[in-house]
Amino acid sequence: MERQYLKEDILALPKRYRTQFINSIIGFKSANLVGTISKTGTTNLAIFSQIFHLGANPALIGMIVRPAVVPRHTLINIRETGFYTVNHILPEWFDKAHQTSAKFKEGISEFTEVGLHESFGEIHPAPYVKESNIKIGLKLKQEIPIEINDTILLIGEIIEVKIPEAIQKEDGFLDLEKAGSIAVSGLDSYHQTIKLGRLAYATPEEIPHPLPENLQ
Amino acid sequence: MERQYLKEDILALPKRYRTQFINSIIGFKSANLVGTISKTGTTNLAIFSQIFHLGANPALIGMIVRPAVVPRHTLINIRETGFYTVNHILPEWFDKAHQTSAKFKEGISEFTEVGLHESFGEIHPAPYVKESNIKIGLKLKQEIPIEINDTILLIGEIIEVKIPEAIQKEDGFLDLEKAGSIAVSGLDSYHQTIKLGRLAYATPEEIPHPLPENLQ
Repeated sequence: MERQYLKEDILALPKRYRTQFINSIIGFKSANLVGTISKTGTTNLAIFSQIFHLGANPALIGMIVRPAVVPRHTLINIRETGFYTVNHILPEWFDKAHQTSAKFKEGISEFTEVGLHESFGEIHPAPYVKESNIKIGLKLKQEIPIEINDTILLIGEIIEVKIPEAIQKEDGFLDLEKAGSIAVSGLDSYHQTIKLGRLAYATPEEIPHPLPENLQ
Repeated sequence: MERQYLKEDILALPKRYRTQFINSIIGFKSANLVGTISKTGTTNLAIFSQIFHLGANPALIGMIVRPAVVPRHTLINIRETGFYTVNHILPEWFDKAHQTSAKFKEGISEFTEVGLHESFGEIHPAPYVKESNIKIGLKLKQEIPIEINDTILLIGEIIEVKIPEAIQKEDGFLDLEKAGSIAVSGLDSYHQTIKLGRLAYATPEEIPHPLPENLQ
């Protein structure tokens, strides 16, 4: 049976139902932990699913934040220091990653509270998650206000990447499945993946074939 | 072995290598087909991985487009008519979905060329993908230029949703795995998912437990 919702139906839904529904409707999302540090040296870690590829040249990552709600320390720290990290989540500790969304008291680091560990690089002050496989260091380039729903698009430029050598294919592609990265749907549903395959560049003449084995 | 890239290293990479690398770095992405129609009635279908949840109230979807490159017909049609659809992709025809990225001649509909079918609703003119399980109808609300890399953030409000009744849980959440929706990584890698589980609302006191069975 098909269920249809029109705009008015969506607006009339109970708030929590609508939140679960609309948060899950767009499909699978990246599951990342954002690491920051305050001016006074307290680290912060927060899970985000609204982080996306913005462009490869320059290498830019977009992130939607809602300043009115948690995790507002993330935004304060990014503004104060200009730097943040994005760290992929592994299946072995996705529950710890989820717990970073709890409302911890001011001055307490989520790293300590959920049992993950900080690791620092040499070119910026923001903490990486030691347990993470794919670590991205970002410099804030621009904030774009999205007035329609009081959110902000943060644009960060990639200034450092740390990955296991073995997950990068010879064409540059990162095998996220081999890395163990997970995906999220909605607010609270976590998923591993099974590869269907990589496909060749598409042409009008034929349905694309799989890429050769060394690139799969 | 860990591999480290700094900003200069990334800038120095060959263009295609960097594109594959940076497109795959952020994690798994939603895999969607965007359906539009021109003023003269030609339909268009294009695969996008830069579509994301923007907010639940009002129900908004964000989408990054690059006007200088394909699929520019999508943008032209959205501007002309004000409407577009977002349709999830199924494993049975992910190769057809990928082929929509080929450069077809003007005036030819990707629906016909790749072998997918149009379905129309009653409240807007944009075509849905008949074979899709989750269909979202959107009205363009705003365009925000992102000057740093000549892209545009399109903001659409959800005005219609069509889903199989059986995939919606009693709290509103959509079980995308049951629906069969797939994820994409990088430019050309497609993935099915295996559920790790849904977790309860996080509190500072304990690592979150799984939600009850009826909500999994």
